[in-house]
Amino acid sequence: MERLLAEEKVFKDPVHKSVYVQDELIWNLINSREFQRLRRIRQLGTSYLTFHGAEHSRFSHSLGVYEITRRIISQFERNEYKDWPREERLPALCAALLHDLGHGPFSHSIEAVFDTDHEDWTCRIIMGETEVNQILREVDETFPARVAAIIKKQYDKPIVVNLVSSQMDADRMDYLLRDAYFTGVHYGTFDLERILRVLRPHQGRIVVKESGMHAVEDYLMSRYQMYWQIYFHPVTRSSEIILRHIFGRAKELYHNGYQFEWLPKPLLKLFQGELTTSDYFLLDEALAQTVFMAWSDERDEWLSDLCRRFLHRRLYKEVIVSDHNEALYEEARQQLRQAGLHPDYHLEVDFPFDLPYDVYRPDAGNGKKNSEKPPILLLDSEGGLSEISARSDIIRSLTGLHQDKHRWYFPDDLLRPVAHRLDSHIRAIFGY
Amino acid sequence: MERLLAEEKVFKDPVHKSVYVQDELIWNLINSREFQRLRRIRQLGTSYLTFHGAEHSRFSHSLGVYEITRRIISQFERNEYKDWPREERLPALCAALLHDLGHGPFSHSIEAVFDTDHEDWTCRIIMGETEVNQILREVDETFPARVAAIIKKQYDKPIVVNLVSSQMDADRMDYLLRDAYFTGVHYGTFDLERILRVLRPHQGRIVVKESGMHAVEDYLMSRYQMYWQIYFHPVTRSSEIILRHIFGRAKELYHNGYQFEWLPKPLLKLFQGELTTSDYFLLDEALAQTVFMAWSDERDEWLSDLCRRFLHRRLYKEVIVSDHNEALYEEARQQLRQAGLHPDYHLEVDFPFDLPYDVYRPDAGNGKKNSEKPPILLLDSEGGLSEISARSDIIRSLTGLHQDKHRWYFPDDLLRPVAHRLDSHIRAIFGY
Amino acid sequence: MERLLAEEKVFKDPVHKSVYVQDELIWNLINSREFQRLRRIRQLGTSYLTFHGAEHSRFSHSLGVYEITRRIISQFERNEYKDWPREERLPALCAALLHDLGHGPFSHSIEAVFDTDHEDWTCRIIMGETEVNQILREVDETFPARVAAIIKKQYDKPIVVNLVSSQMDADRMDYLLRDAYFTGVHYGTFDLERILRVLRPHQGRIVVKESGMHAVEDYLMSRYQMYWQIYFHPVTRSSEIILRHIFGRAKELYHNGYQFEWLPKPLLKLFQGELTTSDYFLLDEALAQTVFMAWSDERDEWLSDLCRRFLHRRLYKEVIVSDHNEALYEEARQQLRQAGLHPDYHLEVDFPFDLPYDVYRPDAGNGKKNSEKPPILLLDSEGGLSEISARSDIIRSLTGLHQDKHRWYFPDDLLRPVAHRLDSHIRAIFGY
Amino acid sequence: MERLLAEEKVFKDPVHKSVYVQDELIWNLINSREFQRLRRIRQLGTSYLTFHGAEHSRFSHSLGVYEITRRIISQFERNEYKDWPREERLPALCAALLHDLGHGPFSHSIEAVFDTDHEDWTCRIIMGETEVNQILREVDETFPARVAAIIKKQYDKPIVVNLVSSQMDADRMDYLLRDAYFTGVHYGTFDLERILRVLRPHQGRIVVKESGMHAVEDYLMSRYQMYWQIYFHPVTRSSEIILRHIFGRAKELYHNGYQFEWLPKPLLKLFQGELTTSDYFLLDEALAQTVFMAWSDERDEWLSDLCRRFLHRRLYKEVIVSDHNEALYEEARQQLRQAGLHPDYHLEVDFPFDLPYDVYRPDAGNGKKNSEKPPILLLDSEGGLSEISARSDIIRSLTGLHQDKHRWYFPDDLLRPVAHRLDSHIRAIFGY
Repeated sequence: MERLLAEEKVFKDPVHKSVYVQDELIWNLINSREFQRLRRIRQLGTSYLTFHGAEHSRFSHSLGVYEITRRIISQFERNEYKDWPREERLPALCAALLHDLGHGPFSHSIEAVFDTDHEDWTCRIIMGETEVNQILREVDETFPARVAAIIKKQYDKPIVVNLVSSQMDADRMDYLLRDAYFTGVHYGTFDLERILRVLRPHQGRIVVKESGMHAVEDYLMSRYQMYWQIYFHPVTRSSEIILRHIFGRAKELYHNGYQFEWLPKPLLKLFQGELTTSDYFLLDEALAQTVFMAWSDERDEWLSDLCRRFLHRRLYKEVIVSDHNEALYEEARQQLRQAGLHPDYHLEVDFPFDLPYDVYRPDAGNGKKNSEKPPILLLDSEGGLSEISARSDIIRSLTGLHQDKHRWYFPDDLLRPVAHRLDSHIRAIFGY
Repeated sequence: MERLLAEEKVFKDPVHKSVYVQDELIWNLINSREFQRLRRIRQLGTSYLTFHGAEHSRFSHSLGVYEITRRIISQFERNEYKDWPREERLPALCAALLHDLGHGPFSHSIEAVFDTDHEDWTCRIIMGETEVNQILREVDETFPARVAAIIKKQYDKPIVVNLVSSQMDADRMDYLLRDAYFTGVHYGTFDLERILRVLRPHQGRIVVKESGMHAVEDYLMSRYQMYWQIYFHPVTRSSEIILRHIFGRAKELYHNGYQFEWLPKPLLKLFQGELTTSDYFLLDEALAQTVFMAWSDERDEWLSDLCRRFLHRRLYKEVIVSDHNEALYEEARQQLRQAGLHPDYHLEVDFPFDLPYDVYRPDAGNGKKNSEKPPILLLDSEGGLSEISARSDIIRSLTGLHQDKHRWYFPDDLLRPVAHRLDSHIRAIFGY
Repeated sequence: MERLLAEEKVFKDPVHKSVYVQDELIWNLINSREFQRLRRIRQLGTSYLTFHGAEHSRFSHSLGVYEITRRIISQFERNEYKDWPREERLPALCAALLHDLGHGPFSHSIEAVFDTDHEDWTCRIIMGETEVNQILREVDETFPARVAAIIKKQYDKPIVVNLVSSQMDADRMDYLLRDAYFTGVHYGTFDLERILRVLRPHQGRIVVKESGMHAVEDYLMSRYQMYWQIYFHPVTRSSEIILRHIFGRAKELYHNGYQFEWLPKPLLKLFQGELTTSDYFLLDEALAQTVFMAWSDERDEWLSDLCRRFLHRRLYKEVIVSDHNEALYEEARQQLRQAGLHPDYHLEVDFPFDLPYDVYRPDAGNGKKNSEKPPILLLDSEGGLSEISARSDIIRSLTGLHQDKHRWYFPDDLLRPVAHRLDSHIRAIFGY
Repeated sequence: MERLLAEEKVFKDPVHKSVYVQDELIWNLINSREFQRLRRIRQLGTSYLTFHGAEHSRFSHSLGVYEITRRIISQFERNEYKDWPREERLPALCAALLHDLGHGPFSHSIEAVFDTDHEDWTCRIIMGETEVNQILREVDETFPARVAAIIKKQYDKPIVVNLVSSQMDADRMDYLLRDAYFTGVHYGTFDLERILRVLRPHQGRIVVKESGMHAVEDYLMSRYQMYWQIYFHPVTRSSEIILRHIFGRAKELYHNGYQFEWLPKPLLKLFQGELTTSDYFLLDEALAQTVFMAWSDERDEWLSDLCRRFLHRRLYKEVIVSDHNEALYEEARQQLRQAGLHPDYHLEVDFPFDLPYDVYRPDAGNGKKNSEKPPILLLDSEGGLSEISARSDIIRSLTGLHQDKHRWYFPDDLLRPVAHRLDSHIRAIFGY
């Protein structure tokens, strides 16, 4: 089952310096067409419009998650920790490598409009008629299902799920470091080597040696900073709003019988809700951008306007509305409509919030969800376990729900010329 | 003319930490649709297939070249060097920012097949009916032509051309550092701050203070290493060969009257040799990849095979052929043909060479050309100038033409099954 | 007054890359014998026994504080902020450079035993018959007193004091970054460039632009981590305890009329409480270590034992005593005495605590005191000010008093052989 | 023999991030008083007077050499290379750790004046009555001699000597990286991880896999740059000249019967040529600096002047003398004497040269000698070996003897006032 490569393969990686592949199985998975497709999906969606360095793909992130998982397991094996089930090495590595396989272009926006879920797609690809499935089945017929179960967090050995998906898993560790590296911000860096050194398999879970508490604090602080500095950056949110409107408008037009100049098959199937894995394979960012470019000249004014905004980065402006409420928002919508704008496309409210670390609550309700993520446990020298926020003031303070202000997004270029038509208190909100 | 922004704009940049924009003109150029298009063109073409981090765009490189130029000029101004013509600040900054505007997707391959030149396209965009042209003309009617002249190295003040295009210009300094950062290799790093500190405007040229000689050595050594480690990497060359064959085959088919399932307008115009700037605007990497994806299912077997190879990274294998000569190569082609392969698509010879630093020769004959690049001059404390390779042993040794070996590239998966049909000495070359 | 050097001097600095000196005054101060003496005083006292890289001197830190101050002021001047009093540039730079001039070898231990204060010594050196005083007086006769007043925080322009001494001053910013660099830990790094960019002179104080809040959070988090990871590291505390005992024992012996084999003059004067600035000049770490080496062979057994422990790094072991109280401690002392040890030298309790950021309390009571340090103020876009912990959850959580556990330190090699003589519950505490 | 620690010990190291100790033997050696003494000897002697960050000790370098050696051997073992003699692991690690044990304070200067050799001292300490010897003998009685033989390059297994002492050994790799880190220069960095990955044990030697050639080029280029930028920096050379003169003058005075105010025993024994290992133990940089401080007030004017120069960094100035020859130098000496200076102390010529990589010549004749260092061999895929400079243009160009210009060093403050007494052509040389 565990066939090794004649010679270890090494990928140069800017974040981990090197990614090492020793297993033939992993090597074959990396070379599958479904995994290579991840090169055409950006890791951070539209963030590159805010941080121009953030052009890295899910391909490099996936290799990074694999590498961190490999290092953790290799450390467990070197130290011969008896609580680590050695036979789980290969399933864990495969799950780490493949966990993002189902991401489409600009997933967050597409999922919001079409009600799809990238984790489902990951499992469909693993279980479907794909190269990845074929490669996994070479281990044995049940192997694809085992890998999928880990990714769906339904595997019967929680310690394996822990590695790939928990409050301090290989996925997060890689994306915090990688996104920090490529955006060029400092906040996301923490001492990975130190954290790897204090992880321990312990009675069916991954826990942290007590002496590693400060390293975990540093990691959670990085996570907090990355959310508020990068992932929730207003310019990024603005571009996501534009994207959602593009997909939303196109879907609406389709269902109204509009004839597109060009509507490639994968999008048609997406509109019809009948996407197959082979259609899905074609749906990458190159296709999305090519479609946006074509739609820049569509007859429908709103669609073409939105596409041009996205491609040429003429995003919506944002204002903080400290006294936001539904009535006020509705009033603003009304006045925009009277002024000739279309509030469904030209006004949007956004209110990001996050739980950087959550002990109790089942779901943080946000794009990057914490739901079902097991807590971080500290292992003291006597073998006792404690939930980390009971021990660290800092982490306790990070545990509460963090919220941004309400922000309204709108097209300044369209609203400014007609702003005199707005009531003065609404006008004031928009800063005119 | 030099209208400043009310507040300086700052871009976070992973290589230079920050990119500062003070001029309204620069800000407007960055926001033009032609400049935003550079986000859709990768800086290193196909290198991301070798170094997965190398997914950065020409947009970020262009900002970097602008920033280095800005720092050099700002240092000249702060020190009030009299040999720096202060009125050239804005033209120099514009030329730095825009110098790569004409790059298309995978330029090297497209230029080889269609005999186009990205520098010409840069100037066509600057001079044509574009947003960039309109913004530049706000300075005055002759301003676009001045900027274009700097880029074409025909400007009447060589010191300005020097900044943007010489053996140690802002362009190279940025790409060496940036490509090193994103690939994750160490070789390309050198001490930029130190080099900026020793540059001096001197009698119409940029020269280097004598004490900076070792810093220049280090820079040229980086350049040497980057060429051989990154730019000439056999896997990258292999993917470029595939790309050239894709474009070559498609062009051939078109001229033979073949009917493509899908041939978007910009490619049609490219085949017809009638590309306009507005067609060119549409020709980005998203389009190229979408076309390759579509052509993966074309009826023409060779074209579809090549496209699948590129998209799924099933590249040609390479062997070093130390006794390569034309006769041997022709013999191999014959035998491949007899074995059922098509040598025009299935065999390619490659022989990279480079002049990392050239004093005398007018043209190094390579993709990254040195032609007409003025030499690096050292300024001693008495005001004397000397060409740097006369002073540094290391640089003298880097000055000669460096050559790789001849390598043959071929599809291992197609050749291996029929290798028994080859003569034994030819078979041995291919390693069967 | 502000004579500039013909050519700017540049020091290569591993933390700030370069330190720039433009003023003749600064250059002369750096070259004074009192400032050069700082090369012979380590920045982190005994921390090098825990983190072997921490061998850097107060000389390099002082240059760093100067450089950060220089960058802040230079930014204020470049932006022509009207609230910055331009005539304070030179006094501020001098205070930044000289603020640590009065540090002696292992200051914390010496100050604890001999009740001296390095800030007093700094001012004595600035005001006394020294090269530094002579150089400062070249500006004018009152100049040394102005510089001393800034360091004593009694200057009539609080904004200048703010720069050098506040909750986010140039001193702390340098030592966090520098100590992190030399120890090799990751925690102390924060984005200096970003913080410098958001500082603003505002109505007699230095405040932070609102958009800089997250950067300040990151800085305070670094500070928190550095205290608990580095400055309060038990091994470092153990070596400081040994040092305090060395000085304490020698002082006691001296006052009991003991004849030392060798007692160099500066130490004699220290014991007599009659140290002059010229004696003080001789009192550096080289002398201290040479004395410890000599005292390793002193007849007094305790003194020689302590010195050998320090030099050969045979430090006291430490145990956490969660139920520490005075009675228990006294009981342990009694039993140690009965077992033949000397509790005054062989047992010590330590209880580090810190206020990483304090809004209200006048004094954190710790070695690194916060007393009188003005709070960090955020400046919003309407010109309003708010104390930062009112805005940031993280900072609010860092504001409380942080405490370690009680730890007892003792010589394991001496206690272990006689441990059977201790009562079992005391023996258990020591881990025997 | 190979007793492992119950728990691996980890040192935080800024260069290698972590240094891992698994063997009880290594742990005990590190804790020996002779090894701890290396904390009191700076790695770069007087370089801290030029680069203020260069205050690191031979202790941290020695740990670094050990760590690199450990990583190389661990890689050999993990890959089960049969040409690596597994039983040599512990001797190799000990030799790596202890190779610099015999360094005294400012070794280069002391060795020049007193004709001692630190390698001899290393072996005397290993073989003498020391803690280190005792610890080594616990392995077996012959073990100290085996370790000493490796250090003396007389071991019967050259592959072990190779690791610790060759043209690309663990010693150099660590000092280049470490000195670059602490000085803050960029030049010394190269890709250590890559180099470690291409080393192979091969028929009794360490060789380099062919694909590692460019990494070796980069390493040698770094070495070249570090020599000319750091190790041969004129300010450092000037301070070494002062030091040599201090020791030379003191020795001369001693042999003339001069009575020193203070002459500590280790120095007395050094002057008498009768230093024992226990005297040597006392001879560290703290003692040397304390002596210099005391001698600053010696009656002998030259000695006290030299000591003050060193302590307060009032070094000799240097001029480049392009037409230096013996006659000219003698003439200058004569004129200095007539002008009232003492040429033996007040004029010195320096002419640094180096062989960064030498294939043929037995000795480069310089402080950092290449003598007997085996060449770097490339191993190709067929198992063939070639000397690396036969394959790399760059290395061939680095192979020649590199020389600086002749520089004269002199006390500007003393010579300037009497410069009018010099002949004009001599005066011109000194720049008056």
